[in-house]
Amino acid sequence: MTPWPLPPGSTIGLLGGGQLGRMLALAAARLGFDVAVLEPEPDAPAARVAAHAITAAYDDPAALSSLAARAAVVTYEFENVPAAAVERLVDLGVEVAPGARALAVAQDRLAEKTFLNAHGVATVAFAAADSAEAAAAAVAGVGAPVLMKTRREGYDGKGQRWVEHAADAPAAYRALGNVPVIVEAPADFVRELSIICARGRDGGFAVYPLAENHHGDGVLRRSLAPALASPVLLAQAERIAAQILSGLDYVGVMGIELFELRDGSLLVNEIAPRVHNTGHWTQDGCPVDQFEQHIRAIAGWPLGPTAASCGVEMINLLGDDARDWLRWAAEPDTRLHLYGKRDAKPGRKMGHVNRLRPL
Amino acid sequence: MTPWPLPPGSTIGLLGGGQLGRMLALAAARLGFDVAVLEPEPDAPAARVAAHAITAAYDDPAALSSLAARAAVVTYEFENVPAAAVERLVDLGVEVAPGARALAVAQDRLAEKTFLNAHGVATVAFAAADSAEAAAAAVAGVGAPVLMKTRREGYDGKGQRWVEHAADAPAAYRALGNVPVIVEAPADFVRELSIICARGRDGGFAVYPLAENHHGDGVLRRSLAPALASPVLLAQAERIAAQILSGLDYVGVMGIELFELRDGSLLVNEIAPRVHNTGHWTQDGCPVDQFEQHIRAIAGWPLGPTAASCGVEMINLLGDDARDWLRWAAEPDTRLHLYGKRDAKPGRKMGHVNRLRPL
Repeated sequence: MTPWPLPPGSTIGLLGGGQLGRMLALAAARLGFDVAVLEPEPDAPAARVAAHAITAAYDDPAALSSLAARAAVVTYEFENVPAAAVERLVDLGVEVAPGARALAVAQDRLAEKTFLNAHGVATVAFAAADSAEAAAAAVAGVGAPVLMKTRREGYDGKGQRWVEHAADAPAAYRALGNVPVIVEAPADFVRELSIICARGRDGGFAVYPLAENHHGDGVLRRSLAPALASPVLLAQAERIAAQILSGLDYVGVMGIELFELRDGSLLVNEIAPRVHNTGHWTQDGCPVDQFEQHIRAIAGWPLGPTAASCGVEMINLLGDDARDWLRWAAEPDTRLHLYGKRDAKPGRKMGHVNRLRPL
Repeated sequence: MTPWPLPPGSTIGLLGGGQLGRMLALAAARLGFDVAVLEPEPDAPAARVAAHAITAAYDDPAALSSLAARAAVVTYEFENVPAAAVERLVDLGVEVAPGARALAVAQDRLAEKTFLNAHGVATVAFAAADSAEAAAAAVAGVGAPVLMKTRREGYDGKGQRWVEHAADAPAAYRALGNVPVIVEAPADFVRELSIICARGRDGGFAVYPLAENHHGDGVLRRSLAPALASPVLLAQAERIAAQILSGLDYVGVMGIELFELRDGSLLVNEIAPRVHNTGHWTQDGCPVDQFEQHIRAIAGWPLGPTAASCGVEMINLLGDDARDWLRWAAEPDTRLHLYGKRDAKPGRKMGHVNRLRPL
């Protein structure tokens, strides 16, 4: 049995070797943990800062056994981890956090919205379909225009398309690959916000201040935090976070994307059972950032404080944006974070900067 | 030829795999660099967070060739790197920073004090000896009591002893191993201070606020920073730092230990051509800490800001002190840093905490 809280010197297993994994690994190292990364790509960003790197498919049985042999707890940097891999780790006696329930809900947009509504958390109207014909009925039911999304996979605007008329639904369904979909009513929002929250093994709960997020082409470009927000709005966001985390018996950090409507109410757009791009501002805006907070939570440590110590504008460096590293490094009030990716493909997240300002 | 400033994605070589190397490696990773560590001990703290670990003696020719083949620049975490290793790296066409001159001065207490005095920086009175007879004369010349130290090696109070009378000098000389020594007059100081400073490849110069340091049994226990200090004292410390760094044509971060005398003047106790234990407070007290600053300097990047954003009490966790990790982790205003060392030998530096307070 794993002893909680997990003592320093233990090894934390990590599924996924990208930038979120890299920043989790750095945070774990600061607290005296070793990290073992399982990732299919060789030379991955997180593997280069980890004590152990296992290069294999996520569902490779030998790789999972090797990870289970080293790790006292396993976490992940992305929600599309194969459920079978998590089951296998659990069968091998390793705790996976956040748990299988959170993953199942986050991996399926229908399960996610159903869970949210069942726990008193509002979302846009939606309907599911698993055939071209059913898609037309779903669009008619919700009322066009709608956003049609595959129930599984897809991120940063991929795996989704707008449907202007119910008659276009079958074609859209086929264009998305003839796989189960969900159709969502558009949200008439005034702002996109997010709340990064955490729940510990003891049920301890913590939320960071809200971030205001700006996207372009479906990809996050900038977050401003703490977002200007009334006490009523903050209380509403905290209540949503608490209901989701306790409803999932969650352990770890979660990113919750929110739509703020004209009337001041909040809808949940989606949840990410992991550290989140809109929480990168905490690295330089809070004494304990989302990465350390996640490690604390999954290790059974007490959660850290979440108040902001300064204001932050987080800007993602996509593709060639990262070529400006020297300019950013020369700005006294800017902290630069680069992910060590070899290839700056267009739109690829290469790094980010946090520009600091007094609160 | 190495292109300066060194672009992210380059590999930084590191001689030494202890806690300073580990914290340097974490800082380098944040800026998008890879790190290659050369260290004789397997499973060293820094090696476990580095992309490449070479386990070999520091002067192993094959290991140095391997390091040189990977690294665009090489630095070190401790000043007792064999000079021959640095020469070999330079012969292989790799830049080593800080350079050979700084190492030579820092490795020999006689060369160090001679250099300091020659550059207008005050030290205690001293004399050198390389025989038991000469030791007696040296003690008589400086005037007992004196502190006798080996010219080379020794740290944290090792390799030194008090000599109360000139007649005891030969015995002390033999007890220290019959090696060249320096004898130093005691400093009648009111406080031990240190200044962490940096010089870039372009000659850019930056100093952090002073730290006030408290030792026990020759080992640093606590640092308080920024230390209370008059503008006159600060200006004096900055002048000392500037003279030392420019006198050595230095590149990197340096820790300078100072004695504050009753009359408000400062003597330099010793210099460390590397990141320094009394600078750990900058990790949570400054936007850019000494580790990132060192990486910036050796990579030819612009230096970062050095103003304190909060006050810090840094406490070293020695040996079993680190068993209190859970208590420290639960303190909201305390940041915990653990080094991942396997074996908590008495007095061994296992980690530190930074306790934050408003400025």
